[in-house]
Amino acid sequence: MNSDAGKKSKDFVQSVDRGLSIIKVFNEKNPELTLSEVAELTGFTRATARRFLLTLEELNYVGSTGRHFYLKPRVLELGYAYLSSFNLVSIAQTHLEELTNKLHESCSVSVLQGHNVIYICRAASKRIMTINLGVGAQLPAYATSMGRVLLASLSDVEIEDYFKTVKLEKLTPKTITDEKILRAALAEIKKNGFAITIEELEYGVQSVSIPIHGKNGLVIAAANVSAHAGRTSKEDLVSKFLPLLREHVKEIELILQLQK
Amino acid sequence: MNSDAGKKSKDFVQSVDRGLSIIKVFNEKNPELTLSEVAELTGFTRATARRFLLTLEELNYVGSTGRHFYLKPRVLELGYAYLSSFNLVSIAQTHLEELTNKLHESCSVSVLQGHNVIYICRAASKRIMTINLGVGAQLPAYATSMGRVLLASLSDVEIEDYFKTVKLEKLTPKTITDEKILRAALAEIKKNGFAITIEELEYGVQSVSIPIHGKNGLVIAAANVSAHAGRTSKEDLVSKFLPLLREHVKEIELILQLQK
Repeated sequence: MNSDAGKKSKDFVQSVDRGLSIIKVFNEKNPELTLSEVAELTGFTRATARRFLLTLEELNYVGSTGRHFYLKPRVLELGYAYLSSFNLVSIAQTHLEELTNKLHESCSVSVLQGHNVIYICRAASKRIMTINLGVGAQLPAYATSMGRVLLASLSDVEIEDYFKTVKLEKLTPKTITDEKILRAALAEIKKNGFAITIEELEYGVQSVSIPIHGKNGLVIAAANVSAHAGRTSKEDLVSKFLPLLREHVKEIELILQLQK
Repeated sequence: MNSDAGKKSKDFVQSVDRGLSIIKVFNEKNPELTLSEVAELTGFTRATARRFLLTLEELNYVGSTGRHFYLKPRVLELGYAYLSSFNLVSIAQTHLEELTNKLHESCSVSVLQGHNVIYICRAASKRIMTINLGVGAQLPAYATSMGRVLLASLSDVEIEDYFKTVKLEKLTPKTITDEKILRAALAEIKKNGFAITIEELEYGVQSVSIPIHGKNGLVIAAANVSAHAGRTSKEDLVSKFLPLLREHVKEIELILQLQK
């Protein structure tokens, strides 16, 4: 959780914050932006936005067509720095691929990032692979089975902080948004070691998740299998998907144990 | 090409450069680094490295265990900003998946980034999907078929700049490192509209690539199919893979045309 945001230490280098904010202002809706638009979206003055855009352009992270600015592929080097530094990603990838091939459904690994789960690894079944659910995509933790597994692993302080700051919204009529019910669900997950969500995030989507433990026994990520609600029953999730998911995650955890 | 690196404009914000350099110092070999190691690897003083690490920690891009620093998943938001802002990625992904399912071989899309191709999109065949060839991975342009397609699309000034600055190394005994032969190969690719490389990057790996054209008719990326040299002959690449690759890229280009 990021409740400390706002309090800046004396060592804080504001320009780093600003440079990174400018990168993140570009997205699917705003692939190309004018200087004025960047200033407006970031809240920076035009002069500030201009200096940072030109800096990022000199560094080859941003390109321009004269009037419009856009991100260049060098930006990928940054995300790749994270992916290649987290050995879970490379270890999990092979196992997710295997699991996807066995179940013909998509499998993912994610970690908690503020109020969201962020995908760090994914193997998509043939049918549906959209960029929206690619590595780096984020979804609200409370409405996803991976998010619930990760929330259930938080300390008391962290979970209080989460509920104090999160906005629980109905994403479908089935989304649990009652804090009391959600807390009970998290307790249940802690006891059972897995989470299931049925159409709480989106119609037709259900999934089962379990935690991945690091060397020290702490939960470092969650892994899931998601399946279309029409093709798979809740019973299948528990009796068919969960055991295979457990088997593969156990192997991932074993490899993590063996790492120096 | 980045021949302008070094010349900094008066608007250049050095702190942005430094912050991004610190992120990129982490990788597979260096997933966790001490302050001294970061200082050494970046060439910054300890005091500077410390300020930037603490800033990135406050911004939640970096975590620490006391002595060691490591990247946090928020870093993925940066790479995701690029991927989601470049509509080619989402358009190409579905087509790559389809092509991979038809050919049972891995397909990718990449763009030129300095002397390298950088993968922006990839559909892996079941057997081999390593993080090393995931989105964001980079390979030397001259030794890959996608790289050659992209080099063949450069302007005269750009290609002169490329040859002036690139270091051509033998990655296998088959890698073409003679500038004259490479230039002839690029001219050939320009004429034929496709490139083939056989074990120039790595033993057992061969691939065929073609350019992807944007709305304005310019080459914006390259797409390839790669296959194990043992399973597939060079003739297969031309007679079987190339026509299917062309078919799918034509569809991608058509969708790009229709975009506003």
